[in-house]
Amino acid sequence: MNARLVDRMDRAAEEASSQGFEALVIPPSPDLAYLTGYDPMPLERPTLLVLRAGDPPAMLVPELERPLASDSPGAAAIELIPWSDGVDPYFEATRLLPKAGRVAVGDRLWASHVLGLQRALPGLAFEAASAVMARLRTVKDEDELAALRRAARGADESFRAICTASFLGRREEEVAADLADLLVHNGHSRAEFTIVASGPNAASPHHEAGSRTILPKDAVVMDFGGELGRYYSDTTRTVVVGEPPAGFERVYESVHRAQVAACDAVAPGVPAQDIDRVARRIIDEAGFGARFIHRTGHGIGLEVHEPPYLVEGNHWALEPGTTFSVEPGVYLEGEFGVRIEDIVAVTAQGVERLNRSTRELQVVE
Amino acid sequence: MNARLVDRMDRAAEEASSQGFEALVIPPSPDLAYLTGYDPMPLERPTLLVLRAGDPPAMLVPELERPLASDSPGAAAIELIPWSDGVDPYFEATRLLPKAGRVAVGDRLWASHVLGLQRALPGLAFEAASAVMARLRTVKDEDELAALRRAARGADESFRAICTASFLGRREEEVAADLADLLVHNGHSRAEFTIVASGPNAASPHHEAGSRTILPKDAVVMDFGGELGRYYSDTTRTVVVGEPPAGFERVYESVHRAQVAACDAVAPGVPAQDIDRVARRIIDEAGFGARFIHRTGHGIGLEVHEPPYLVEGNHWALEPGTTFSVEPGVYLEGEFGVRIEDIVAVTAQGVERLNRSTRELQVVE
Repeated sequence: MNARLVDRMDRAAEEASSQGFEALVIPPSPDLAYLTGYDPMPLERPTLLVLRAGDPPAMLVPELERPLASDSPGAAAIELIPWSDGVDPYFEATRLLPKAGRVAVGDRLWASHVLGLQRALPGLAFEAASAVMARLRTVKDEDELAALRRAARGADESFRAICTASFLGRREEEVAADLADLLVHNGHSRAEFTIVASGPNAASPHHEAGSRTILPKDAVVMDFGGELGRYYSDTTRTVVVGEPPAGFERVYESVHRAQVAACDAVAPGVPAQDIDRVARRIIDEAGFGARFIHRTGHGIGLEVHEPPYLVEGNHWALEPGTTFSVEPGVYLEGEFGVRIEDIVAVTAQGVERLNRSTRELQVVE
Repeated sequence: MNARLVDRMDRAAEEASSQGFEALVIPPSPDLAYLTGYDPMPLERPTLLVLRAGDPPAMLVPELERPLASDSPGAAAIELIPWSDGVDPYFEATRLLPKAGRVAVGDRLWASHVLGLQRALPGLAFEAASAVMARLRTVKDEDELAALRRAARGADESFRAICTASFLGRREEEVAADLADLLVHNGHSRAEFTIVASGPNAASPHHEAGSRTILPKDAVVMDFGGELGRYYSDTTRTVVVGEPPAGFERVYESVHRAQVAACDAVAPGVPAQDIDRVARRIIDEAGFGARFIHRTGHGIGLEVHEPPYLVEGNHWALEPGTTFSVEPGVYLEGEFGVRIEDIVAVTAQGVERLNRSTRELQVVE
């Protein structure tokens, strides 16, 4: 019996109950991995963990995945309910769920399964489980913080190394491949994303590295991360190839100042939206507010993006152990873009920056 | 303007309309890649393509992904509707959708987005879009068939090569790593899954390769595949390390015979469930029916698993151009398992086996 997983399942059931939910229904997803250590691929055959306060955990599993599920870390505490190809799994699920009331379903549950459950249980009101799961997952324990620290260090080492690589005359996708190799070399089990956006492409925040050749005076935004010990890294740095393009330094300076100030503003009790406001005010005052086209950050852990979101309207008060990105950016279409991103952890006193690589402008060759 | 993509979007809108849907709503997924060539990661920020017969296509996109979306292959035919962090994207979606009637949403749309749309549009009845999308995607065109053929050949070459590798005394995960490398060496952009299940582990159909050391007399089930030119391979072969275990040959012979007979039964007009019945009858008669614990196969294309499913109750009549797996298996808990899987295509006359590697029992060392 894995005590940590049993405790997590207990707390999730209690939290769901305290929020007025009759049951919590979790499909294969980071939520399931967090609660049970079981992490199969989400598929058309539903796997559903059902947690209800006072009842032992139960999990509907496809018959052919029963052996896999029963070998998983939390299985000893879970009653497995196999279902076979050819039967209606949503009808099977009705045996585990109430007929009326509110149930919370994992945010990533596929529509086909949500709609199948709604059809089988028309008396239930379905809501997203993030309100429940975020209460557990947002505050990391010491082991989780250690994993996130290791992932951040691996990303930092990768950035330091890529700065000594050559950019000029190479294609974005070549630099992206180098970054992916560096992440693995620096301890990651795999690279999840390696945005390399050069010249005007840097004005596209989620640009996919392509065949563009990197030229002199290009700004290059690199946003990269991957999985290390199940937890994610996610870092952005913007470099220039030789001389910066016209107008670049003023933009870089304001994004840099905004990012440092937003990191410094992190402390227990501060509402999430205030971190966004700190960054946005500085960029507004510099005259680029209209080109800061996204929120300031997102939580990170078993997912690259998870609660809390650092965005206007989010009044949630930061708690020690919470980890998230701080990543203001400015994007001038047709010209260039700048983004600087670190992962930080809220501490009892204030903030710990998990990324440590320099935020000063690096000139590459 | 990409004529093929425009045609696909038109046909999808028409098919949805003919099934009585007011609109078709497609998130980042293989469906979206098929319709538009746009294939971003599904995220907490919704991206939603909306198709309605008679209207031009429209797509709700997060503001920061607008540049990426507007560079995508089908974008010229799609009106992009950006939404910014801090606004309610489901409220934005109401401007693209009717207030009443039935809408079809992509099977993989996350629950958080389904429930957000249901909250914003309480007058709409939501159903899964697979009934619409399967009408388009199940029958492959010549380019798609060519891609699936190349993927199958790459898997065949990988199997031939792994048979000359050493098994005895190595861990499952080492053989799995070899298989992944071979798939990439044989043209795949990446390996998606490499099940290597040895000895008693072979009785777990979705076993994940682990630290078990492969022993003499082990049966080893290898189920592997990946992406090549956007389309998937998926092949299973069962080999033995030297002498087979007691009782193995009778099981292998029945699975082999069932797999060959099921492939041979494939022809236009045959109901999908009949292929399952052909395989199941042979395994039943051999006395192992209770241990054939899954359907006989699944469609394959832009997804590893997609319609049609070869399962009792599926009366859908096979059409030329349809591609799917034929993969009967028998699993004796605590002892061993056997599965043999090929991808086949329905032709005008009958069937083409896309996999060509031998189905005779291979003895490895």
